[in-house]
Amino acid sequence: MPKRLTRTPGRPPANLERDARDALLAAATDLFAQHGVAATTFAMIAKRAGLTPAMVHYYFTSREQLLDAVVEERIAPLIAAVWNPAEPGAAPEELIRGIVDRMLAGIERMPWIPSTWMREVLNEGGLLRSRMLRQLPFGKIDFLTDAVARGQKGKTVNSDLDSGLIVFSVIGLVMLHMATVRFWAELFKRTTPDREEMCRHITGLLLHGLQPTSHPKKDKRSGKR
Amino acid sequence: MPKRLTRTPGRPPANLERDARDALLAAATDLFAQHGVAATTFAMIAKRAGLTPAMVHYYFTSREQLLDAVVEERIAPLIAAVWNPAEPGAAPEELIRGIVDRMLAGIERMPWIPSTWMREVLNEGGLLRSRMLRQLPFGKIDFLTDAVARGQKGKTVNSDLDSGLIVFSVIGLVMLHMATVRFWAELFKRTTPDREEMCRHITGLLLHGLQPTSHPKKDKRSGKR
Repeated sequence: MPKRLTRTPGRPPANLERDARDALLAAATDLFAQHGVAATTFAMIAKRAGLTPAMVHYYFTSREQLLDAVVEERIAPLIAAVWNPAEPGAAPEELIRGIVDRMLAGIERMPWIPSTWMREVLNEGGLLRSRMLRQLPFGKIDFLTDAVARGQKGKTVNSDLDSGLIVFSVIGLVMLHMATVRFWAELFKRTTPDREEMCRHITGLLLHGLQPTSHPKKDKRSGKR
Repeated sequence: MPKRLTRTPGRPPANLERDARDALLAAATDLFAQHGVAATTFAMIAKRAGLTPAMVHYYFTSREQLLDAVVEERIAPLIAAVWNPAEPGAAPEELIRGIVDRMLAGIERMPWIPSTWMREVLNEGGLLRSRMLRQLPFGKIDFLTDAVARGQKGKTVNSDLDSGLIVFSVIGLVMLHMATVRFWAELFKRTTPDREEMCRHITGLLLHGLQPTSHPKKDKRSGKR
């Protein structure tokens, strides 16, 4: 929940400015996740942040500028946090484990990410799609594609997989499950799995599928935490 | 592409009725996939089918009735085709292979399905969500959950997986990849994988993950086609 701010006459001091701007971005992203970008008005954002629509216009002169700020100041740092540690030459298992783990950590901080990604990036006509494409770390993505292809050549990775599609399977599986896990839990009358349970399921599926793990991977993973 | 129909005065004969109704449903579902349900008007549907808006109203008195028809006459038969062959006691690998294969066959006939599912069922506020829930084959879904849980008990299935989440991983992975494969191919300058390639990637991931297959599964599968 964004904290409620009191209005001050004239130009607010710098730290209040930062707080108000952050509160507006938090309100906007919450509303985007719930209703989508198109259905979210400046009036709704102002109301949720406890500010006036004029204040929204003061910080973001247009919807375009607000969307730029959401992508550049909220989504881009998450993409960087997820992908920056990926190194060329790493094993594909290591890369996937790290990507899933860091995505789940980011989503815990910003729970609005998965549904916004599904609605505004994956959907044709999604209002953040072209902005997001400019942020994609193509070089880092290549590390994963190359690692899978290398593993397939050396017969250490499943040859049924399309090495280029893997990145999409990884990101998609995390986003899809995290966007819908509460809905799923309600539907099947289950308790919502926590972050560690989701991580185990998703990583388990990506690394081994249904096949039981024959070597003691678990000790290795829990030792890393 | 729906075939363009000529208008007839008065009540059209029965087979023309069926053709016109089918053409309208085809136009509606194509538009839903492209623009979403909320942004699709009767005028747009009429125009795409080469009919008048009055004709749309003649067959579907309201948007609600049109959505009922889409779910009951287009989506429900696909759900039945995908799930009906699932039998209790089947091995989880067999169940998953069958579900993925039949989903991909259905999507080939109705390419509008994946993006509509993502937009109108998965999204909070999706306009087909509650209608779809009534169609879910909970009993059949249980066969898969039970098969995975049974395999985990017998140590033949990866114990990291959440047996109840699996159905969502399977359906989600197919829908996600099929909704975005053209976008992905454009983005990474790849040719769009065909149905068999998508089936191999998705089934491979679900059954084995990155882990190379140690036994000759491929021969078994290609023998089944």
